[in-house]
Amino acid sequence: MRVSELSSQSEVPIPTIKFYLREGLLPAGTMTGATQAIYDHSHLERLRVIRVLRDVGQLSVTAIRDVLAAIDDPDLALPEVLELAHHALSPPPPRATTEHDEARRLVETFVAGLEWRVDPASPALDALAGALVALQQTVGPCGPDVFTPYAQAAEQIARFELSTVDPRQSAESAVAQIVVGTVIFERALIALRHLGEEHFSRERFGQPSDR
Amino acid sequence: MRVSELSSQSEVPIPTIKFYLREGLLPAGTMTGATQAIYDHSHLERLRVIRVLRDVGQLSVTAIRDVLAAIDDPDLALPEVLELAHHALSPPPPRATTEHDEARRLVETFVAGLEWRVDPASPALDALAGALVALQQTVGPCGPDVFTPYAQAAEQIARFELSTVDPRQSAESAVAQIVVGTVIFERALIALRHLGEEHFSRERFGQPSDR
Repeated sequence: MRVSELSSQSEVPIPTIKFYLREGLLPAGTMTGATQAIYDHSHLERLRVIRVLRDVGQLSVTAIRDVLAAIDDPDLALPEVLELAHHALSPPPPRATTEHDEARRLVETFVAGLEWRVDPASPALDALAGALVALQQTVGPCGPDVFTPYAQAAEQIARFELSTVDPRQSAESAVAQIVVGTVIFERALIALRHLGEEHFSRERFGQPSDR
Repeated sequence: MRVSELSSQSEVPIPTIKFYLREGLLPAGTMTGATQAIYDHSHLERLRVIRVLRDVGQLSVTAIRDVLAAIDDPDLALPEVLELAHHALSPPPPRATTEHDEARRLVETFVAGLEWRVDPASPALDALAGALVALQQTVGPCGPDVFTPYAQAAEQIARFELSTVDPRQSAESAVAQIVVGTVIFERALIALRHLGEEHFSRERFGQPSDR
């Protein structure tokens, strides 16, 4: 297909497609003349991934390029590409303090106790340690065991999510799925937790309109 | 106790305590002279709540004042105070569009199907509708049923969280607990979901080091 059809099918404006071509995010099409190129289904799929990473993941062009490079690297297996996408989507780690280092050790032991095998460099370990430090500072002394019910819920969710990833699909579409999952379902999970809290607080402490 | 002891026990600097007194966030102490006042345990408790709302909830002074006013209102029951705290902690609602209004209706039906009784004005309903719109725009046509596994996990978490709130405790300390829960355990839940995804992706698609 020509660039005009690629644009209408992907709903990405032509100037944006040309920007992605210049930035190397989108591979060049097959030249059919001095100024004409044709594009195929792989370009459509790549545009969809770029859109997810940009609009949903809110990644910078540099971070998008890193994730795409990992997708294109034949030496990386799917879990490694997914981990790289997770890293790109995570907030920067909190600054190292004595409290943080100690919490980080406790959290590593906690995760090992769940029998989860994770990358020791995963930013999620730092995020979890940060939550433990915040809890200790506001509530008082406590250990990572307070996270157990959340770990059980997270295990249930992660197991479900991975069961929906088709191992035969391309790394590209698996990553798109995980990024969508990471960002959009995170928002949904947070909203549902609030709604559930509202419901169970009414159930436990009485409905305002019941009085 | 004098203000100096209130400061050392609460770990809040004296100038900050005086600011909270001026702004009406902290009730005045009992005057024991022209310039001296004494404070009691309720002031300590209130300072802890302010600290949680400010540091953990990142609320503005105005939003903190609203939550404290709800805590002090004898006509409000605990669920109403908790809902008000939730509202103060939620991001502003997304702008109303045709897609959003339609998603909002679907989401309301979905939540009613869970048999959850929630405030129709809850910002979490808008947040969930926003997630549905984002999903439809990136993945394609879908309904709120895709949220079912997340709703199940949220129900499990919310049920556990409310079971830990002692109905005999003050609205003040219940709100402090919910704010801590909303903000800190949200961070923990997100981190644990990432770690769980890493583990199950390795389990399903092979450990990088196994190859």
